[in-house]
Amino acid sequence: MNSPTCSLQWLPFLSLIFSTSVTATLYNIPSLSPIGRTMLQDPETVSASVNVSEDFQTFYYNQTLDHFNYRPESYSTFKQRYVVNSKYWGGANSCAPILAYFGAEAPLDNDLTSIGFLTDNAVQFKALILYIEHRYYGKSIPFGSREEALRKASTLGYFNSAQAIADYAEIIIHVKEKLDAKHSPVIVIGGSYGGMLASWFRLKYPHVAIGAFASSAPILYFDDITPQDGYYSIVAKDFREASESCYQTIKKSWSEIDEVASKPDGLSILSKTFKTCNPLNTSSEVSELKYYLEAIYTYSAQYNYPPYYPVNNVCGGIDGAPSGSDILRKIFAGVVAHEGNRSCYVNGPRNISESTVGWEWQQCSEMVMPMGIGNDSMFPPRPFILSSFIEWCKSLYGVPPRPHWVTTYYGGHDIKLVLHRFASNIIFSNGLKDPYSSGGVLANISNSVVAVHTVNGSHCLDLQSAKETDPEWLVKQRKVEVNIIKGWITTYYIDLLAFKK
Amino acid sequence: MNSPTCSLQWLPFLSLIFSTSVTATLYNIPSLSPIGRTMLQDPETVSASVNVSEDFQTFYYNQTLDHFNYRPESYSTFKQRYVVNSKYWGGANSCAPILAYFGAEAPLDNDLTSIGFLTDNAVQFKALILYIEHRYYGKSIPFGSREEALRKASTLGYFNSAQAIADYAEIIIHVKEKLDAKHSPVIVIGGSYGGMLASWFRLKYPHVAIGAFASSAPILYFDDITPQDGYYSIVAKDFREASESCYQTIKKSWSEIDEVASKPDGLSILSKTFKTCNPLNTSSEVSELKYYLEAIYTYSAQYNYPPYYPVNNVCGGIDGAPSGSDILRKIFAGVVAHEGNRSCYVNGPRNISESTVGWEWQQCSEMVMPMGIGNDSMFPPRPFILSSFIEWCKSLYGVPPRPHWVTTYYGGHDIKLVLHRFASNIIFSNGLKDPYSSGGVLANISNSVVAVHTVNGSHCLDLQSAKETDPEWLVKQRKVEVNIIKGWITTYYIDLLAFKK
Repeated sequence: MNSPTCSLQWLPFLSLIFSTSVTATLYNIPSLSPIGRTMLQDPETVSASVNVSEDFQTFYYNQTLDHFNYRPESYSTFKQRYVVNSKYWGGANSCAPILAYFGAEAPLDNDLTSIGFLTDNAVQFKALILYIEHRYYGKSIPFGSREEALRKASTLGYFNSAQAIADYAEIIIHVKEKLDAKHSPVIVIGGSYGGMLASWFRLKYPHVAIGAFASSAPILYFDDITPQDGYYSIVAKDFREASESCYQTIKKSWSEIDEVASKPDGLSILSKTFKTCNPLNTSSEVSELKYYLEAIYTYSAQYNYPPYYPVNNVCGGIDGAPSGSDILRKIFAGVVAHEGNRSCYVNGPRNISESTVGWEWQQCSEMVMPMGIGNDSMFPPRPFILSSFIEWCKSLYGVPPRPHWVTTYYGGHDIKLVLHRFASNIIFSNGLKDPYSSGGVLANISNSVVAVHTVNGSHCLDLQSAKETDPEWLVKQRKVEVNIIKGWITTYYIDLLAFKK
Repeated sequence: MNSPTCSLQWLPFLSLIFSTSVTATLYNIPSLSPIGRTMLQDPETVSASVNVSEDFQTFYYNQTLDHFNYRPESYSTFKQRYVVNSKYWGGANSCAPILAYFGAEAPLDNDLTSIGFLTDNAVQFKALILYIEHRYYGKSIPFGSREEALRKASTLGYFNSAQAIADYAEIIIHVKEKLDAKHSPVIVIGGSYGGMLASWFRLKYPHVAIGAFASSAPILYFDDITPQDGYYSIVAKDFREASESCYQTIKKSWSEIDEVASKPDGLSILSKTFKTCNPLNTSSEVSELKYYLEAIYTYSAQYNYPPYYPVNNVCGGIDGAPSGSDILRKIFAGVVAHEGNRSCYVNGPRNISESTVGWEWQQCSEMVMPMGIGNDSMFPPRPFILSSFIEWCKSLYGVPPRPHWVTTYYGGHDIKLVLHRFASNIIFSNGLKDPYSSGGVLANISNSVVAVHTVNGSHCLDLQSAKETDPEWLVKQRKVEVNIIKGWITTYYIDLLAFKK
């Protein structure tokens, strides 16, 4: 399996490293990355017009560690990376716009080429493109080194969304001053967690950005706003719609694995069937195998992009296994279809990404998305138990999460009631095949706080570069989004003339 | 002189205590208190219907020290005081509203009786009244004691507006949960600095408050938005409008004081003329005398309330001095008119209030209001020099102010352009005789972000209790404000029916 850029489905494995006292199975939380790695490896996803070395200029801003306090430590600074592509910019004199992309829980590097929406459309906006890396990722690390920054809660403590969007505000203001572009309108754009940041930024810093485009941002997956089983229900639905028999095979496979594992030579059978890199020796390694399979399914559903449609691909493997294959052989055929032919799968050496490590902290501090599995699913039931989650986080970091802070600071409850007569200029885009759309804003809130969704879309698909093979609904979705943003900019220019005389 | 509850005009004296190396004269910054102490001592200002012991219930909320970080220290808590008056409340079942008063830079105690707008109007709103004390004031002190909390930047560092409004959000959410009043609309109300907090709260926490009433909130007195001399220009204008001769006498008095002081027996003459408590011995004590006079004039202008109108009163003293009085005797007659007959005035023992101490820190961290005196005034010119201010603050606290943070976090520049199509339900009320109105919002921003101002009003006058002697324009102003708030609540109920079906 090609795991996504930020493979948060690997979190439970990480938890096994840190802690054996708490059941890890609770926290198999899917990735919030805008792009699956599969997509990055597809040459078609890289915009033909992008030349990283020529078009992009990298800068480092002397960023304040702690915007919200005035303790001597608060004044520490770190170098925060941002990248500018001014190839298409119409310039400050014509108040040409700035499209600001908000980095999420990953280094910024891949975003420069993979977020094609920006490079594809900058020319028609005559826009400057600004990419800003999120603190504690990539090259934007406080305390001198990642090791130092991630060592303990007292250094990790500054690693959160409120500080991150304050960083973004400072850098946007700084760049506008540097370019003498005071009246250039700024549109902030992000996908997934970065999309949440973009929409929250428009709410908190309307004086810095005139609008926000939030792709696949599950801002309602907090507290009790969204049913816990929202995410996994959509994964199951995606599979069922692709193939009823595939769905049923997966559904039966979990107990089958347990049954085989409980036999005297069961672990050896499983090891052979799934071509594990090392023989399975313990029940926790069997659990790992199950997470591995779960991750393939959630990943496939979340990044179910045309033209390959990973869900169809996995189900093609499962349904197309040689006739007479038993359930586990069918499942393995799905694995091979997804991962390609490899010398071995699962239970080998692990590569834990920056994103996995960083996002685990973010979840264990404020990004508490209660994600469980209900009784009627293709997965075994697994309720999210807040108290256990809190204990787990405390065992990892020594400090507990604040599960209600996101809704206290950003809101979310009764969102239509609250924002119907407040705010403006936000696009919430979602693909309904994306399991995270269960926590997204799917209905218009007002004339200018709008929901754009596609029945067949998946996670952040609209942010990807346009391709020849794109289905018509995707082409249309991006056009709708571009036109909405054009409308904001036009209205802004009218207001600018009216109010700045 | 009866100094106002929070006599920030005394700041320069405080600076003399801490530091002699920096010229203190730069920072004679007028009070931001909603109520002058004169008013508190006037029995008419206390609502007849208020019975503090019977109607008010005091609670302490276990408040988080640091909402914005997740360091182990961030989780410390302190007891934050809030007070509830439920005498007029229609109850949770009828979704009756909550009027939440935001404490400012003072203990909460006086607000319970002096903010008559709440108690006068709660009955017609069937509203619960909630008063919340600002962190680091009164009984809401972290770190166990005021002494400990104010000792150094590492404990003072959590003392700022972003933390304060997050406190308010948590307490309002908590109170609503406790009362099971999820759908009771909340209107936040504050005066002066508390008014800034109220308007900022509506911008940052629209999901917690449906509207904000910000009385005399100079949210534009930051960065370069408002001309530096705005405040003192209005003080001078108030005096000139009251009496040209009074204005001219004051204008001439400063050089007269300097001239007398430079004579061999000059300090003794000044001491006698102004009946100082101790003889003036140094030039810095002469400066104190001048600050004392300046404070009388700024105070009188800021709190120029009917029916006494302190500016007229001071000018009555000055203009009515026995014929043949020289300039300084006239000035002293103004002092006596304002302060009443006392055994001595100025250069005696000082009483430095909590507000003075706390507000100095707040100004030296984030509330940097560049307030200077121009060349054409009744005061000697005194430009605000940011670099000197920064040095002064560093010498006091060891950390520098962040003079641009308020506009970065809350905005302020191009406010109409920014908020014309964003936000809703804010009243910015101002009295144009109030020197702080120079930094207030004086023009409507949109249909529901509105400016209410009165030509003859002064600082936070509309928040005071209604009195028999109130002029018609004041009665009308309060009616307008009440009707606007009623409109918000009505619209909210309509939305509630529409969106919560």
